[in-house]
Amino acid sequence: MSEEPTASAQLPPSGEIQNYSLTATTENWFEYPVRAYPYHSDYSGIVWHGRYLAWLEEARLEYLRSIGIDYAELVALGCELPVVELSLRYHRSVQMGMAVVVKTRMTEIAGVRINWDYRIQSVDGEELYLTGRVTLVAIDREKGKILRQLPSAIKEALVKRAV
Amino acid sequence: MSEEPTASAQLPPSGEIQNYSLTATTENWFEYPVRAYPYHSDYSGIVWHGRYLAWLEEARLEYLRSIGIDYAELVALGCELPVVELSLRYHRSVQMGMAVVVKTRMTEIAGVRINWDYRIQSVDGEELYLTGRVTLVAIDREKGKILRQLPSAIKEALVKRAV
Amino acid sequence: MSEEPTASAQLPPSGEIQNYSLTATTENWFEYPVRAYPYHSDYSGIVWHGRYLAWLEEARLEYLRSIGIDYAELVALGCELPVVELSLRYHRSVQMGMAVVVKTRMTEIAGVRINWDYRIQSVDGEELYLTGRVTLVAIDREKGKILRQLPSAIKEALVKRAV
Amino acid sequence: MSEEPTASAQLPPSGEIQNYSLTATTENWFEYPVRAYPYHSDYSGIVWHGRYLAWLEEARLEYLRSIGIDYAELVALGCELPVVELSLRYHRSVQMGMAVVVKTRMTEIAGVRINWDYRIQSVDGEELYLTGRVTLVAIDREKGKILRQLPSAIKEALVKRAV
Repeated sequence: MSEEPTASAQLPPSGEIQNYSLTATTENWFEYPVRAYPYHSDYSGIVWHGRYLAWLEEARLEYLRSIGIDYAELVALGCELPVVELSLRYHRSVQMGMAVVVKTRMTEIAGVRINWDYRIQSVDGEELYLTGRVTLVAIDREKGKILRQLPSAIKEALVKRAV
Repeated sequence: MSEEPTASAQLPPSGEIQNYSLTATTENWFEYPVRAYPYHSDYSGIVWHGRYLAWLEEARLEYLRSIGIDYAELVALGCELPVVELSLRYHRSVQMGMAVVVKTRMTEIAGVRINWDYRIQSVDGEELYLTGRVTLVAIDREKGKILRQLPSAIKEALVKRAV
Repeated sequence: MSEEPTASAQLPPSGEIQNYSLTATTENWFEYPVRAYPYHSDYSGIVWHGRYLAWLEEARLEYLRSIGIDYAELVALGCELPVVELSLRYHRSVQMGMAVVVKTRMTEIAGVRINWDYRIQSVDGEELYLTGRVTLVAIDREKGKILRQLPSAIKEALVKRAV
Repeated sequence: MSEEPTASAQLPPSGEIQNYSLTATTENWFEYPVRAYPYHSDYSGIVWHGRYLAWLEEARLEYLRSIGIDYAELVALGCELPVVELSLRYHRSVQMGMAVVVKTRMTEIAGVRINWDYRIQSVDGEELYLTGRVTLVAIDREKGKILRQLPSAIKEALVKRAV
């Protein structure tokens, strides 16, 4: 890994309280293909409703990776992005064996909250299986407190992406 | 198991379409104690956000059992209660090793939708960890269609409970 | 999907009991890359010991797919391949964020048992994280009985592969 | 919690290397009842083979609790008990909805390895679903090294138990 991202990802100085309002919207959806294996399914032959959250996490972290942010490094730097809120609607069931696409984008950054929108669709885009939103905050691992501003690596990557 | 519930739980005659409007509210919360084991936690030492859905399912099915409904029997009779919508808010994190209480109640039955409210609290009730709502529908397993009315066993149990 | 595999995958005639002894060994390991996401980890920051079984299942089914066998189709045809035995040794821990490779091969087909050997290694092959063996049998879904011979699609694919 | 166990649970002085050979056998099995919920099952209606490991972990930690050892406290003191080896045999499948009993006992402590034997049985003891063994070692969290001797709290509890 290059050193640049590490340097720019350093946490804000302690005590610094700074409000900012940034609306970053990724125009395009990031697409992450997955397949429903037996362990994703339940007795009814379809993916168990809670199992989708693993796919959403994978898609989110791969999207971050695609814009230069390695989540494990972020954690090593002292920042975590826990989920503080989520809502999901199950439109159609995904059967065991099916290949589908998880689409995600960050729709806005409202204060310290990062919102991610999701759609799970068939590969051909014809069927919609799930829509949802997951909200994260950035926290300082050591203090266990919400960061008043995102690590600069994330903010910059998002802004660049949002243009 | 007694035969009564089985008899009354039979699915409605095919073709029958019947609207009903029943507002059943369980006055008291059903309480279901759980403990956070290592496999519930993630790298941060707290329960992974998607793992809570297993606890919510357990609490829901144990509540149904407490009013005389065995979910596996319901499935054997041809009825499933899949989740069609959910929303969760994470107020505080549950640490690995902690014992907490999952509280749930059915707040209303709106048409074919059954809404369950949830609160995860500390054993002494002082701390609130999670609030959420999960919405189910009843479906006919064979036809894969939403039942226009709940199996009578459920409806009766709910009405009795709601008085 | 072509119709050939479907035709040849039909289950053996009921009542047919036939012993066969086939030793099929895939010379090369099938390699399946995975990454350890937060949901795979536990409080200690490493992959929880039970979570590896999901990776082993994925690798196994992708290997079958690579030789023309779609597991969901096999199930639709009435055949399942449940796990009847497994043993794992954890040599080193996989940290959250790491990318590793799951290697698998079928080492032998002993009567009705299909043995799969596994190695989880670092991408460069230098580090060994896990070794294991998983044993499957083929069962007739409807009768719930062990098949005395594998569905011909599997057997043929294995024999071809084993040359 | 009383202070005694905490005091006696302190890790051995760094540098101390001490071989000991203790054969502790709990005569009686510890019994831990569980129920198979939908999220434990897979498409075939039975518990997914990897899901049992969560039950084995729960039973193990509840057994430790029953002899005065709180696993989360042990971790806070700097000691972890990771799984280094396991083997399982699946004799019969556990169906969604079934209540079964996980039985466990420590069969021996061989050097730094702690072996746990498992049996999953029907409530009436008539049916056997799974047998298995899970091997743990004690490690020093900070150094990431295997402890040459168990924390004294564990050793004492085991010896007392084994009489």
